Amino acid sequence: MKLAIQKAKKYGLGAVAVRNSTHFGIAGYYSLMAINEGMIGITTTNARPAVPPTFGVEPMLGTNPLTLGTPTDENFPFLLDCATSIIQRGKVEVYDRIHKPLPDGLIITTNGRSPNDPHETLKNLEESTAALLPLGGKGEGTSGYKGFGYATFVEILSSALQDGIFLKDTAGIIEDGQKRLKVGHFFLAININHFTTLKRFKRTTGTIMRNLRVSKKSPGKSRIYTAGEKEYFSVKERKIQGIPINKS
Amino acid sequence: MKLAIQKAKKYGLGAVAVRNSTHFGIAGYYSLMAINEGMIGITTTNARPAVPPTFGVEPMLGTNPLTLGTPTDENFPFLLDCATSIIQRGKVEVYDRIHKPLPDGLIITTNGRSPNDPHETLKNLEESTAALLPLGGKGEGTSGYKGFGYATFVEILSSALQDGIFLKDTAGIIEDGQKRLKVGHFFLAININHFTTLKRFKRTTGTIMRNLRVSKKSPGKSRIYTAGEKEYFSVKERKIQGIPINKS
Repeated sequence: MKLAIQKAKKYGLGAVAVRNSTHFGIAGYYSLMAINEGMIGITTTNARPAVPPTFGVEPMLGTNPLTLGTPTDENFPFLLDCATSIIQRGKVEVYDRIHKPLPDGLIITTNGRSPNDPHETLKNLEESTAALLPLGGKGEGTSGYKGFGYATFVEILSSALQDGIFLKDTAGIIEDGQKRLKVGHFFLAININHFTTLKRFKRTTGTIMRNLRVSKKSPGKSRIYTAGEKEYFSVKERKIQGIPINKS
Repeated sequence: MKLAIQKAKKYGLGAVAVRNSTHFGIAGYYSLMAINEGMIGITTTNARPAVPPTFGVEPMLGTNPLTLGTPTDENFPFLLDCATSIIQRGKVEVYDRIHKPLPDGLIITTNGRSPNDPHETLKNLEESTAALLPLGGKGEGTSGYKGFGYATFVEILSSALQDGIFLKDTAGIIEDGQKRLKVGHFFLAININHFTTLKRFKRTTGTIMRNLRVSKKSPGKSRIYTAGEKEYFSVKERKIQGIPINKS
């Protein structure tokens, strides 16, 4: 992302494709680098197979995050850093640890069922007999093909621009007799100054955030959060109170 | 998009923000322009309020399509042109015309219900007492905040880069005593040649599409479609057989 930012400083836009990489940590971190330079930051990565296509059951795509961030005039930016699947493996682990059944519609097994046992599901995910459904869910009824489409686009950006590893090969390829894990990334920085003043941009995005938050709430809900807001308050609280540690 | 393509021919990347526009037709058309020049095309537009934030019920965001397209080595490109809401108003109209109840979980009313009567829902959408849920659905259980986040990012790209109209103002603003409808767009072209050869890129994306299609199907499903495939076959069929016209 550093190089993308450098290019965007000069030309207004900068993009970099990365090959032969492994897990790059928090995707949002890279978008934040662009935000801190007064830019819009887009980050993608592919990942080991976990998500099936619409009408499919075989894990083919990664949880492929499409990470989007922009500056605002508030204390925290707009920052959306999330998988293009409904949930990721880590959330199944949480359900397993707290011994709670998985809600319907998050996972699909090879025989098309939506399992509720998180422990069994973790085993099935490991054996590729279960997969994490794309955002929008199973089939076309609630538009799961859109989440599938976003995941596919992330796969393309993260691999095809640099002749990289894609789909099943992200689970590991054999090179020189050794199994190697490889993925690719894509970074895009958009220099706001080349379009309008950063001050005006920030005011508009801040106003969008505030208008969204004060809009009419769903019955029983007292607060609307914009992307990046919960994380900001969580960091703030933990800086004061420390990181909570559970009994285990 | 023409200007974005011109810039991308010279610099590798090109982006253009459009202000004071109205409905620009098919979003996918513009991404297709970039694809035809051997580029990746990203197109966004904001639109009149229809979609509430997560935990909200008030129509604030448009159906805000995030349109993504890339060339492939097949007869048709990868082209995802869809709203960031689960469905758009037109689909409610279809349910109304064929006198079928709306499935649960697509719409939210001011009192938080999911209505099934398409005729009443159309009236409520008009009066802003119902709204189209973001991709991922109501609340956080099936990650509706992701669809909400994508819609917000599209709103930002389509307005903040050109000091444009956003959120409720897209329903019409008064200028010189007249009501004017205004929206904004954003176009981005990524010149593939600046990363790798177009031939290699096309082969990778084509292989991704083919691998996805031949992957294991869900029980009862015989075919997996990639984005742009159904539309290609539909065009092909209609060029031969003509456009079907129903009785009404």
